Amino acid sequence: MLMKMSSLFVRTLREDPADAEVASHKLLVRAGYIRRAAPGIYTWLPLGLKVLAKVEQIVREEMDAIGAQEVHFPALLPKEPYEATGRWVEYGPNIFRLQDRKGADYLLAPTHEELFTLLVKDLYSSYKDLPLALYQIQTKYRDEARPRAGLIRGREFIMKDAYSFDVDDEGLERSYELQRQAYQRIFDRLGLEYVIVKAMSGAMGGSRSEEFLHPTAIGEDTFVRSPGGYAANVEAVTTPNPEPIPFDGLPPAEVLDTPDSPTIDTLVDAANRLHPRPDRPWTAADTLKNVVLALTHPDGRREVIAVGLPGDREVDLKRLQAALEPAEVEPATDDDLKGRPELVKGYIGPGVLGPNGAPRGDDGESPDGAMRYLLDPRVSPGTAWITGADLDGKHVFGLVAGRDFTADGTIEAAEVREGDPAPDGSGPLELARGIEIGHIFALGRKYAAALDLKVLDANGKAVTVTMGSYGIGITRALAALAEANADDKGLVWPMQVAPAHVHVLATGKDQAVFDTAARLAADLEAAGLEVLYDDRPKVSAGVKFADAELLGVPLSVVVGRGLADGVVEVRRRASGEREEIAPDAAVARVCELVDQALAG
Amino acid sequence: MLMKMSSLFVRTLREDPADAEVASHKLLVRAGYIRRAAPGIYTWLPLGLKVLAKVEQIVREEMDAIGAQEVHFPALLPKEPYEATGRWVEYGPNIFRLQDRKGADYLLAPTHEELFTLLVKDLYSSYKDLPLALYQIQTKYRDEARPRAGLIRGREFIMKDAYSFDVDDEGLERSYELQRQAYQRIFDRLGLEYVIVKAMSGAMGGSRSEEFLHPTAIGEDTFVRSPGGYAANVEAVTTPNPEPIPFDGLPPAEVLDTPDSPTIDTLVDAANRLHPRPDRPWTAADTLKNVVLALTHPDGRREVIAVGLPGDREVDLKRLQAALEPAEVEPATDDDLKGRPELVKGYIGPGVLGPNGAPRGDDGESPDGAMRYLLDPRVSPGTAWITGADLDGKHVFGLVAGRDFTADGTIEAAEVREGDPAPDGSGPLELARGIEIGHIFALGRKYAAALDLKVLDANGKAVTVTMGSYGIGITRALAALAEANADDKGLVWPMQVAPAHVHVLATGKDQAVFDTAARLAADLEAAGLEVLYDDRPKVSAGVKFADAELLGVPLSVVVGRGLADGVVEVRRRASGEREEIAPDAAVARVCELVDQALAG
Repeated sequence: MLMKMSSLFVRTLREDPADAEVASHKLLVRAGYIRRAAPGIYTWLPLGLKVLAKVEQIVREEMDAIGAQEVHFPALLPKEPYEATGRWVEYGPNIFRLQDRKGADYLLAPTHEELFTLLVKDLYSSYKDLPLALYQIQTKYRDEARPRAGLIRGREFIMKDAYSFDVDDEGLERSYELQRQAYQRIFDRLGLEYVIVKAMSGAMGGSRSEEFLHPTAIGEDTFVRSPGGYAANVEAVTTPNPEPIPFDGLPPAEVLDTPDSPTIDTLVDAANRLHPRPDRPWTAADTLKNVVLALTHPDGRREVIAVGLPGDREVDLKRLQAALEPAEVEPATDDDLKGRPELVKGYIGPGVLGPNGAPRGDDGESPDGAMRYLLDPRVSPGTAWITGADLDGKHVFGLVAGRDFTADGTIEAAEVREGDPAPDGSGPLELARGIEIGHIFALGRKYAAALDLKVLDANGKAVTVTMGSYGIGITRALAALAEANADDKGLVWPMQVAPAHVHVLATGKDQAVFDTAARLAADLEAAGLEVLYDDRPKVSAGVKFADAELLGVPLSVVVGRGLADGVVEVRRRASGEREEIAPDAAVARVCELVDQALAG
Repeated sequence: MLMKMSSLFVRTLREDPADAEVASHKLLVRAGYIRRAAPGIYTWLPLGLKVLAKVEQIVREEMDAIGAQEVHFPALLPKEPYEATGRWVEYGPNIFRLQDRKGADYLLAPTHEELFTLLVKDLYSSYKDLPLALYQIQTKYRDEARPRAGLIRGREFIMKDAYSFDVDDEGLERSYELQRQAYQRIFDRLGLEYVIVKAMSGAMGGSRSEEFLHPTAIGEDTFVRSPGGYAANVEAVTTPNPEPIPFDGLPPAEVLDTPDSPTIDTLVDAANRLHPRPDRPWTAADTLKNVVLALTHPDGRREVIAVGLPGDREVDLKRLQAALEPAEVEPATDDDLKGRPELVKGYIGPGVLGPNGAPRGDDGESPDGAMRYLLDPRVSPGTAWITGADLDGKHVFGLVAGRDFTADGTIEAAEVREGDPAPDGSGPLELARGIEIGHIFALGRKYAAALDLKVLDANGKAVTVTMGSYGIGITRALAALAEANADDKGLVWPMQVAPAHVHVLATGKDQAVFDTAARLAADLEAAGLEVLYDDRPKVSAGVKFADAELLGVPLSVVVGRGLADGVVEVRRRASGEREEIAPDAAVARVCELVDQALAG
């Protein structure tokens, strides 16, 4: 159906919307692809809906190609399945909850593991029914604390979510690999650059997980990569475990005066001033700082813990959060510290923390008051530290981990820095930012076990099914595409997802121009192309050009002044290339360029 | 993509689901098209999704053909626009409401008049931009008190909703007519019988409204039609106004003893026994009964009113409800009647009701205690009645409407009966039942005025836009199709919406059968058809036939015993016709039958 600018429901805007920070958000609104309906909630206008349909279709084709079958679940779901897996509680304020007229609890689903699990349980019962892969392209909801960047972090958005069901681990591995390859084909076809990074499974559970990140400076996810090919999001980066150092010959620890040294900077200064060591000065890396944090568990319980890490590293709350999920973590407040006089602010040491702190009961359980103590992996057995002596103005020097103190475990709490070694030995890490456009999880048996999805195996024995979960943020991928394909004049769609293949512009007032343009538009459509025709009679050529550049259709045919000399102009939006051509040759030339782009 | 029964995500059931009452619900579940996720909320399985996509596509094509442009609104919406039009309150418990993490009120939209109005206001400003028609195919929500009949009355469902915008009434009339014709083409293409009936505008507001009803005994809407072509849903039927009768010569009213006659039956009996009239006996039609009802207004206010109607007619609460919207109506309770000693149960008459009751103030306003009194149109000026005398055991005879008592207005409160005259004089009414599959409204300026949607007219004057709203229940239409196209063996899809064109069955154990069937399935697909292939190796022919009949694909090709004699069988699901044909001729024959069906 030929789209005419005179009647198309679109109004381009010259000004950026006030609430827009990133290019995709600004341009999609200015070009009339989307409109904001509420924070993080958008309406799709005709041109936007056409791009969306093309993105969905590419995803659908690649899902179908690996034998995944399309279904469609409701968005409005009862709480019970999510209660069975614990996610009703774990999601906390991040999901929309409501009650129906009878007072029954419902949610707007943020993802559908539970429902797919129950559906398969409902229909299937034998190993012969597996493997199975199902998917849907469906509207999802998350009550984001800070919706931002237009479609990039919305509260109502479209996802493709797929789920695989296998009888054993090898099957899951194959299913995971099939989806991973399909994702690569999808993003390749979309022309969307991506990096596959190791990720945490987080609230999803499961054994293995990778993210597809689109690298961009406006991305809200930080990831790392090494020259040797290691890639992970920053939450998933692990710190290589140093070799343990033998205790033999390490001098004993001693408590020394370090007056007025409650911070790492003042401590290093005091140590070098009052207790210099002969070979080299003390640095922040020689100090062990202990940070007190408060966790809120899904059941509402609040727990105060301490984390010890080298003094030259900051705590990375996102990494810490990922390590402690589903609990929510924040710095401890004065309230949390009330009734703990052993914590001397600025001088806290392992002596009062974890197993070193208040004595534990016979059963090894921590009694009230002995807080959990977790250490950065760098604080490994045999390493010696300057750290708080739990007395005002005093630190202990040469305190050796594993000899003089222990902890309740290790934790990845420290920031990752450019140049840190990759955990697999593949070289120094580089830091970059990206948008998460896909995420695949080898879930394993978490959901199947919680919801009792079993099948009979070849021996007639009931075995719990193992699952994978695979998501693509369709609306977010579209935003990433807009972000990656834009310049200062507007959008520059790749042919594969453009709302039209070609934009015909009639410029000037000459009737012959409009007649020729109308004929060309009709002929291009008859040749099987999707055509946008700017037929507006009283709009200047300048406005039409500006609109065409803002809308970002890959090819334009400009019919104007040149027509008197027997030529029209074919323009390419991306490169700016222009060529003059006889009107009669224009259709064949445009078809050729479209075919090249689609093949490309 | 060839669908193989061995891997298709479907399990047919031999038993009807326990909660299913109607054929479409039973069969869509048994055949594995849908599954219940919660009351009135369904999941679409692969075959169901294919039918749904075809229904949507037909609707989309006909909308596009009349120049309507597709957009897509969120389902989750802030309350403010709905508050501006009053519907946030009017919808009462019939919508799902929720709050986000900041405590802001949201709803799951049941329809989108407000949002479309605001979007057009946002983008357009001149009469030159109009007419405009927009539509979406989108998931909607209503918190039905009694979800029932599977997809027919659901709580999450898919609608096509369209909206027209015009500068004047003639424009609205044209837009309404375009949609009306598109609806006729849609239902014709779907092969879905329909009747267009006059309807009430109800909570939608507006001047004119028609429903598209699919006639079926399981429909929950009652409608009427006359031999002369009048059709209306029962709420919209109006009672012809009788000619006024002159008061001259009518005898005066007199109060007579009618002991123990609190019901119409006992009253008619007492009247004939104690006060017979010479020419003919009294009947219920000579009595005027006054029914006390309680209204709950959207603002929560409760109002007690009385309705007077001939004693031989029952009150139809649905008609009354439609007449009194948005208030909710129910019979008055004892609590409502407290403090009203003038109401003598069983003997209530006009003497204590409305303008005849407690005296009113100078301003004509009813003081507290004088309840509104509304009359059936049959109780017209000059008609004489036996009715309550407001004294125990006494009725008044010959009380003349307009002479001896008046009311606050008329109301359509009485049941419609088979044989009642059509209001347009086109003959006696016949009653029938149907499913509402479409509803079109000439809304007029209600929404545009409430939300201040104006455009400049040709004279530069701001004028309020006039709108129409046009809905098709996509999932309900699919259910109606299933309901209309089924037999005792299962579904019988029309070719236009079938999940596949042809179902190939390999029966028996012979490898040659499976080889031929696989080749035929591939050839049929290569010929452009959608093919379902029952390739299950260890399933009996009987089960395969039963499944094929349940699934309802219009054509089958059975490859089995006949293959040894060089034939396969082509079966038509609807008629049961069978023909034997050489395998090599089967593809051409099936293509011919598919083309015939799609053309037909």
